[in-house]
Amino acid sequence: MRYLQLHEDRALPLDPTARDIALNLYAETRSLPLVCMHGHVDAAVLADDVPFPDPARMFITLDHYVTRLLHAGGVPLEDLGVGADRDPREIWRTFCAHWHLFRGTPSRYWLTHELVDVFGVELAPAPETADELYDELSERLAEPEFRPRALFKRFGIEVLATTDSPLDDLSAHRRLAAEGWGEQVIPTFRPDALVHLARPQWAGEVADLGRLAGVDTGDYAGYLEALRRRRLDFVAAGALATDHGHESAGTDPLPEADAARIYGAALRGAVSERDAAAFAGHMLYEMARMSCEDGLVLQLHPGVLRNHSRAALERYGPDRGFDIPVAAEFTRSLRPLLEAFGHEPRFRMVAFTVDETAYSRELAPLAGVYPALHLGAPWWFLDSPDGLRRFRQAVTETAGFYRTAGFVDDTRAFASIPARHDLARRIDAGYLAELVARRLLDLDEAFETAADLAYTIPRRLYRRPEPLTG
Amino acid sequence: MRYLQLHEDRALPLDPTARDIALNLYAETRSLPLVCMHGHVDAAVLADDVPFPDPARMFITLDHYVTRLLHAGGVPLEDLGVGADRDPREIWRTFCAHWHLFRGTPSRYWLTHELVDVFGVELAPAPETADELYDELSERLAEPEFRPRALFKRFGIEVLATTDSPLDDLSAHRRLAAEGWGEQVIPTFRPDALVHLARPQWAGEVADLGRLAGVDTGDYAGYLEALRRRRLDFVAAGALATDHGHESAGTDPLPEADAARIYGAALRGAVSERDAAAFAGHMLYEMARMSCEDGLVLQLHPGVLRNHSRAALERYGPDRGFDIPVAAEFTRSLRPLLEAFGHEPRFRMVAFTVDETAYSRELAPLAGVYPALHLGAPWWFLDSPDGLRRFRQAVTETAGFYRTAGFVDDTRAFASIPARHDLARRIDAGYLAELVARRLLDLDEAFETAADLAYTIPRRLYRRPEPLTG
Amino acid sequence: MRYLQLHEDRALPLDPTARDIALNLYAETRSLPLVCMHGHVDAAVLADDVPFPDPARMFITLDHYVTRLLHAGGVPLEDLGVGADRDPREIWRTFCAHWHLFRGTPSRYWLTHELVDVFGVELAPAPETADELYDELSERLAEPEFRPRALFKRFGIEVLATTDSPLDDLSAHRRLAAEGWGEQVIPTFRPDALVHLARPQWAGEVADLGRLAGVDTGDYAGYLEALRRRRLDFVAAGALATDHGHESAGTDPLPEADAARIYGAALRGAVSERDAAAFAGHMLYEMARMSCEDGLVLQLHPGVLRNHSRAALERYGPDRGFDIPVAAEFTRSLRPLLEAFGHEPRFRMVAFTVDETAYSRELAPLAGVYPALHLGAPWWFLDSPDGLRRFRQAVTETAGFYRTAGFVDDTRAFASIPARHDLARRIDAGYLAELVARRLLDLDEAFETAADLAYTIPRRLYRRPEPLTG
Repeated sequence: MRYLQLHEDRALPLDPTARDIALNLYAETRSLPLVCMHGHVDAAVLADDVPFPDPARMFITLDHYVTRLLHAGGVPLEDLGVGADRDPREIWRTFCAHWHLFRGTPSRYWLTHELVDVFGVELAPAPETADELYDELSERLAEPEFRPRALFKRFGIEVLATTDSPLDDLSAHRRLAAEGWGEQVIPTFRPDALVHLARPQWAGEVADLGRLAGVDTGDYAGYLEALRRRRLDFVAAGALATDHGHESAGTDPLPEADAARIYGAALRGAVSERDAAAFAGHMLYEMARMSCEDGLVLQLHPGVLRNHSRAALERYGPDRGFDIPVAAEFTRSLRPLLEAFGHEPRFRMVAFTVDETAYSRELAPLAGVYPALHLGAPWWFLDSPDGLRRFRQAVTETAGFYRTAGFVDDTRAFASIPARHDLARRIDAGYLAELVARRLLDLDEAFETAADLAYTIPRRLYRRPEPLTG
Repeated sequence: MRYLQLHEDRALPLDPTARDIALNLYAETRSLPLVCMHGHVDAAVLADDVPFPDPARMFITLDHYVTRLLHAGGVPLEDLGVGADRDPREIWRTFCAHWHLFRGTPSRYWLTHELVDVFGVELAPAPETADELYDELSERLAEPEFRPRALFKRFGIEVLATTDSPLDDLSAHRRLAAEGWGEQVIPTFRPDALVHLARPQWAGEVADLGRLAGVDTGDYAGYLEALRRRRLDFVAAGALATDHGHESAGTDPLPEADAARIYGAALRGAVSERDAAAFAGHMLYEMARMSCEDGLVLQLHPGVLRNHSRAALERYGPDRGFDIPVAAEFTRSLRPLLEAFGHEPRFRMVAFTVDETAYSRELAPLAGVYPALHLGAPWWFLDSPDGLRRFRQAVTETAGFYRTAGFVDDTRAFASIPARHDLARRIDAGYLAELVARRLLDLDEAFETAADLAYTIPRRLYRRPEPLTG
Repeated sequence: MRYLQLHEDRALPLDPTARDIALNLYAETRSLPLVCMHGHVDAAVLADDVPFPDPARMFITLDHYVTRLLHAGGVPLEDLGVGADRDPREIWRTFCAHWHLFRGTPSRYWLTHELVDVFGVELAPAPETADELYDELSERLAEPEFRPRALFKRFGIEVLATTDSPLDDLSAHRRLAAEGWGEQVIPTFRPDALVHLARPQWAGEVADLGRLAGVDTGDYAGYLEALRRRRLDFVAAGALATDHGHESAGTDPLPEADAARIYGAALRGAVSERDAAAFAGHMLYEMARMSCEDGLVLQLHPGVLRNHSRAALERYGPDRGFDIPVAAEFTRSLRPLLEAFGHEPRFRMVAFTVDETAYSRELAPLAGVYPALHLGAPWWFLDSPDGLRRFRQAVTETAGFYRTAGFVDDTRAFASIPARHDLARRIDAGYLAELVARRLLDLDEAFETAADLAYTIPRRLYRRPEPLTG
């Protein structure tokens, strides 16, 4: 039987000199609190604080990083509990039999960290260990110290931002606040569904928005006002940011009359795809304008074609691994927004990309001159050892360290949060250590920078030590 | 005089710990048989089995990797025997005088391997060594153990797939089969010429296709049927795959009536460039459909603008180094094909790219979720030490090792086959060794993965251990 | 207080074996003369040879690499003396207080080199050292050995090419020539303003061009003739190259009648953006044709959207860090030019890119087959340790070393010239050393290549040892 290895110096540089420096840098950052400003954990998980159900749902069924590779490897999604009921033990056995598919992937690193460090199990997944592992993990999950809030504390999470629709009534956040968790678990305003007018459910949802906000959304002005009010509701509930997932990063504003006309057409179910796309770009511009007013940090995640296989969408629903990147363009796309708001002192924006070519070509040059624009951490497929390293290599020489925004775990898999931050801190320690070993940075600067990257920068960027006036 | 160096530990990691691990991994894979599933060696070379003519044609004239760099360096192609007759000794002298142009290129590594390891010569090419080298190599080429079949066996080739037009009568393959070489040398179905309707020779060739297949290709239905029959002829001759070189990866199917109309227009010599391009994309979709029926693996090599200099094409013919990559797009382009066939259990596809940006952005995410899609090895300009390493770095973290398809040598230069596979095995050993040294993979897993990459994966992907039923 | 570190082995490989080899290679190239074939130093600086005014203007205000990152970090450009008068000591203090913003950037490496090696100061910039540093530097700048010509000699500059408008009367170059500096400081012909017809000042400037050239530019033929004559004036003043900054690399020639029509429309102030862009591409083609006649090397710097923030342009002028790269395309764009002139023995062209994706995909394949095309060094944001290394990694395996054109410093910051060349030589030494250590290149070849890259190649490419005949 094989055992999982979780070496102290994993993911650090190979060169012994650089590795020793990196170990010292990492020793300073490993215990810093986790500032989790973008993720997809459901607030209800922490509000309810009931035990996680079973190892299959904890580690497999709900983690599309895991299910997608198993699916590609020939395992029907149904056998993983996706779109079907399956015995969780059978799901776990299937996963264990395909453990080799994850070699070299971050899922492997995170899962190993979780199993060993969080759950204290040591057997490597394999057909012959599946049942013993399953039993061990099931026992742990039943223990009080493996409930969500206990893990939250054990993980050293200082703040966890969830991602929420403007239609969410934030009741889970209210329950958390009532129990003293309001500063630790905060919502994020994600209005995507409401700004993409061509979705079939849109008209109904925008009516709900009006009801929630107490504004008639029967015209464009009411719609804007309703969004503005919901943003303030989110601010009141502790939100520090908005989040926007668009296929393109376009931000061309429309003349108000055009926006109103398109909005009206959408209400009548008569909007064209082209107008709907133009409206979405226009709304990014409007969201930036509102951020100047209410101080929410605008996070942009563009460049993804969602639900590549429409058959898989129908059968299994969204977020099953069929969201696939496309080439992204920022220089021309962000120009209207940055020309208008890029120098506004109250405006802060974080741009993410899954098209790595934009890092050195467009994003680092833009963030290296516009004070409002910050470089989002490697996102999604890229929050991996090499992905994180390539990000630093691509952007640092053009934009330095202080135009980057801090790591985001961006995860639905709650138990993977510490593993993800830990890996990012290791890679940053390694990158800094190599600069020191190559005599391009002094050691004292590296220590300061490591702590800034892990903790100070995201805290300052999102939390704003001074209250906004003005 | 300088001597060629062929160090045991070449192309392995610099770090001593990783290099030692890599040497051990490489020791396990270096002698595994070569599975050569995509290349351009002419089957007649092996059917005829006559000695290679001279060192100039063996190493220079027919290898456009070599002639292109000499040409760029100021040597007229005619002086290399391209489009002109030249004394092979003079060609060899010219090459030797420009050996420095190849520093840092894979041609240099392959040629060094061939000269030292295959031909046993040790003098480095230079003006003062040219004649001695030429004489030595000429002697070797005259010896029986340097004939094609003898080299084939010495190289440890298990199977060599050639690339063949549907108009090829496969007589060379038949001769090989008659002599017991049928399982070692197999054809590949490459219908490019017949699906690109705007080519001046197209109408004549499609008539030939009809004759060969025994079907009237005077309409679109007959054309499809003829292709279907020729595919089965290739299957009967041992083929395991088709191959497709398109400028774009587009796979939008046309309504049948449109396809028939365009086909008809092409027969009358009245097809537009635009319709011809649409038809080519449509035919990729149709080829995928046929692969679901006959089980041939669909290989796609898109993103190349062929014959960049039309003057050079007229003067020297195709394949002289003037095929230049363009930006490639896969996410939207492959969508129709993958939505239709990406989950078909009988369908297997391998996508190649010379636009490296597509690796991490599009191909690894797609291959990481669609069971039918596999990642082709670095192709053409990219089957080099750094190119191979960048491939693993770009795709592994998103798709793991088991969505990749195995190395292809893709060569016309027969003697370079073992050198190319050897280099790929070294780079893979190095990549795996660095994961082990960085504590991201266990050593036993690395051994297993190394052998899988070199041998098991391509064998399984192309050879299909179980016969297809259904 | 912290001190600046300028280690002998900085920016070299981490691996001890490779580092030792690199140190030996670098020892051979570090003292070779600097061949500065592309830059933005004003010839008047050397013609006047008056002391540089103060440390703020020397190191900060005029260096948009420095001002852009400070601006992004929240410092108003006015506080750096941009678009406003400020006490230079205050500017210096502001810079020192933000020194950490430059960690990991080439500005940090160059400034450290300049301060320690050129100016002999050792205190690291910080609030508490700002005044002492300012005083030390001010003293140095007043000394005769810190005047421009003295520094020029100390830096070991063999030749420095300036960048000049065809409207420049080259009087500074004439003054230099009269004092024996004519071969050391040479002009470069940069006609961008005159080929972009939609600029509001264009009509006036083209009339000036006619006056300077003694040709009536009232029609297209006169315009071409005037450019031809000014090119010859530049040749007479020692110019060896032209330089072209276009948003796209397009080189489609227009029929002469169309070019004449568009030119006429522009004179009447009635040209469309689209026609103006087509004319610019056409003029690249015409410039290549003229280069075949007069032998000037054509340098192309495409792919930049200039003055991204129009408000910043109005307030601060151009060249403030708001020039942002866009995706670049070369394969199709350069095709007309390369098909026509790519095999002309008198024609030489150097293509630069700030879109790194084009290196391996398009530029290396093109330069690896067309004798006229050479690969420009990493430019602008990319002349950094990792940027330089990525360039070699991306192009060498496809095009070798001998299709690259040599380092260009491309700088307005005169004192940074030796620092920039030094860094490039270190990175090249490191790259070669790693090839040697990985047994892919022999040591004697690495020595020869290192010297060729640093000195022989640019000298040969631009200086043309034999005079052109014909």
